[in-house]
Amino acid sequence: METINSISYPIYFNNSLAELANFIKAGNYTKFFILIDEFTGEHCLPIVQKHLGEDAVYDLIEVAAGEENKNIDFCIGIWKMLIDFGADRNSLLINLGGGVITDMGGFAASTYKRGIDFVHVPTTLLSQVDASVGGKTGIDLDSIKNIIGTFTQPKAVFMEHSFISTLPARQVLSGVAEMLKHGLIADADYWNKLKEADFTQPSADLVHRSVEIKNDIVIEDPKEKGVRKALNFGHTIGHAVETWSLDNDKNHLTHGEAIAIGMICEAWLSWKKNGLSEANLNEIVSTFRSLYPAYKISADCHKDLFILMQKDKKNNGNNINCTLLTAIGKCSIDHICTEEELCNSLNYYSSL
Amino acid sequence: METINSISYPIYFNNSLAELANFIKAGNYTKFFILIDEFTGEHCLPIVQKHLGEDAVYDLIEVAAGEENKNIDFCIGIWKMLIDFGADRNSLLINLGGGVITDMGGFAASTYKRGIDFVHVPTTLLSQVDASVGGKTGIDLDSIKNIIGTFTQPKAVFMEHSFISTLPARQVLSGVAEMLKHGLIADADYWNKLKEADFTQPSADLVHRSVEIKNDIVIEDPKEKGVRKALNFGHTIGHAVETWSLDNDKNHLTHGEAIAIGMICEAWLSWKKNGLSEANLNEIVSTFRSLYPAYKISADCHKDLFILMQKDKKNNGNNINCTLLTAIGKCSIDHICTEEELCNSLNYYSSL
Repeated sequence: METINSISYPIYFNNSLAELANFIKAGNYTKFFILIDEFTGEHCLPIVQKHLGEDAVYDLIEVAAGEENKNIDFCIGIWKMLIDFGADRNSLLINLGGGVITDMGGFAASTYKRGIDFVHVPTTLLSQVDASVGGKTGIDLDSIKNIIGTFTQPKAVFMEHSFISTLPARQVLSGVAEMLKHGLIADADYWNKLKEADFTQPSADLVHRSVEIKNDIVIEDPKEKGVRKALNFGHTIGHAVETWSLDNDKNHLTHGEAIAIGMICEAWLSWKKNGLSEANLNEIVSTFRSLYPAYKISADCHKDLFILMQKDKKNNGNNINCTLLTAIGKCSIDHICTEEELCNSLNYYSSL
Repeated sequence: METINSISYPIYFNNSLAELANFIKAGNYTKFFILIDEFTGEHCLPIVQKHLGEDAVYDLIEVAAGEENKNIDFCIGIWKMLIDFGADRNSLLINLGGGVITDMGGFAASTYKRGIDFVHVPTTLLSQVDASVGGKTGIDLDSIKNIIGTFTQPKAVFMEHSFISTLPARQVLSGVAEMLKHGLIADADYWNKLKEADFTQPSADLVHRSVEIKNDIVIEDPKEKGVRKALNFGHTIGHAVETWSLDNDKNHLTHGEAIAIGMICEAWLSWKKNGLSEANLNEIVSTFRSLYPAYKISADCHKDLFILMQKDKKNNGNNINCTLLTAIGKCSIDHICTEEELCNSLNYYSSL
């Protein structure tokens, strides 16, 4: 499969771990470090190690898995480990994990000694099709997702499709939601292909096309001044639902489950405000409903969700901004939605 | 006095606070915030407020003065205040203070929502001639100076000379050390002018020339890959002495006092290793000795100082890097110095 060229770095799909080993050798780094969590340390690291060879010398930095740990405390932990291990400006950080690892590792590296090189080896479907491409780094603070971060491009991304087969089905489906989003905002043919796909194990071709769609958008607008906001479809409401669920629900939603709810609500808003046809709305709703379990959002929580939406980075002043569809495969950005409209869309979701 | 154009922003010298008021109006920001400490809140803020006018609406964020507070805890405090005050991506942070405020405020702004605009209004001589120009932001961690930070340019810098007259003499002298450094590394005429100057109140012209020298260097090499390292003259040893003093000495050294020690030591190394004449060395030593009190550095501390130097951002691997003079007004970068050489230079300082 073709290597995709992003803003200033390559995204490898073929023999990606061999490419990683080549990259490290060619980079002539003083030292390198691999950031892992308990799961990637167990399942992915041994495979990476095989490619690096027995005489490779590096230090491991381990953080606890889970979005609730993508915070400043763990980030300080990474910084202190880099200091203790003697990382200099010519060091490399390899982020081996899902979105928590790539976002937080990217942020830690982009601010350590005012920035050292980092690469991503995304190990979940979600991080392959979403977090690892586009140069956004970040951590959460006060339950607000990615409120602290930088725009810093990795030096390369290595997509290893075999990692996907080690994932539980629910985690695979979390990534599928972002793939479906790519179809909805930019490519109706891809949406149709996805609907026929085997969602227990999406093919490498489908992953490649998702990365291509996302990459085309971020290349045009790296700092999210305009068109990149298309990628936020489903995320204004979805992020709020995800945060609420993380804070209040022991068995909380995955990112994909939350943005699937967000996409249903925002598809309804698209139908209400932006010319999306009722047939398109119904097709979107039935696709997501067939993949993701219904989630109870009581009307008592609407106020809390609205307050979370107000804290969203995407807003200007007090206005809440949504990306809305005009049809399957097409969208437009910067739609201001009122509290009443947003609540009605949540009511619509609950009525299904 | 002429406005100096830096990498992507202007540095105003004439009617600077009126220019600040114009800048805010023209920027059409959703909100703006002023970061102060207890001293700038009392002495400088009222003067800024006069220029902003009575109907200006903004929020104040106050942090405690002092290098020991340039840490992640205060930075988190700034982030949380920005969240609580509802700062969006179209907000502006005005850093009104010395190097602690401009470095930490710049870091907080450059990472809040992946970067909001910020400007500096440096209120000390040191921050006017050093920290406010060049786009380095940072905080200290584990007693290592500026170990966490970004390269992010402010949108403008406003130099208000009248603020200098409110400073205690010791703080003025702290800035003078950086001005003398500018002469030593790049401009022998300027060094000679400075030696004749009234150090209780350096003129606006002298400040302007220092900013010009620093700016010419950072424009050529914004990310310190090469020539910018010239600005580190005196800082390899000086930073270690400063950190040691902060950690161990109640009445600790100012930045300028510490780098004056560093410049004496590194001038000695320049004489020893880099062709600096003995006459030049003596002229440098007597100039600094006449301005700054002698400081006792016992030989017992050399090991601690060396360990601090090893943690310096400027190093590659285990080598300790110094910028050395070849003559007054000329320098060369990337000189590796051994532990023995560095200790001998400290012994030289103590023998004076």
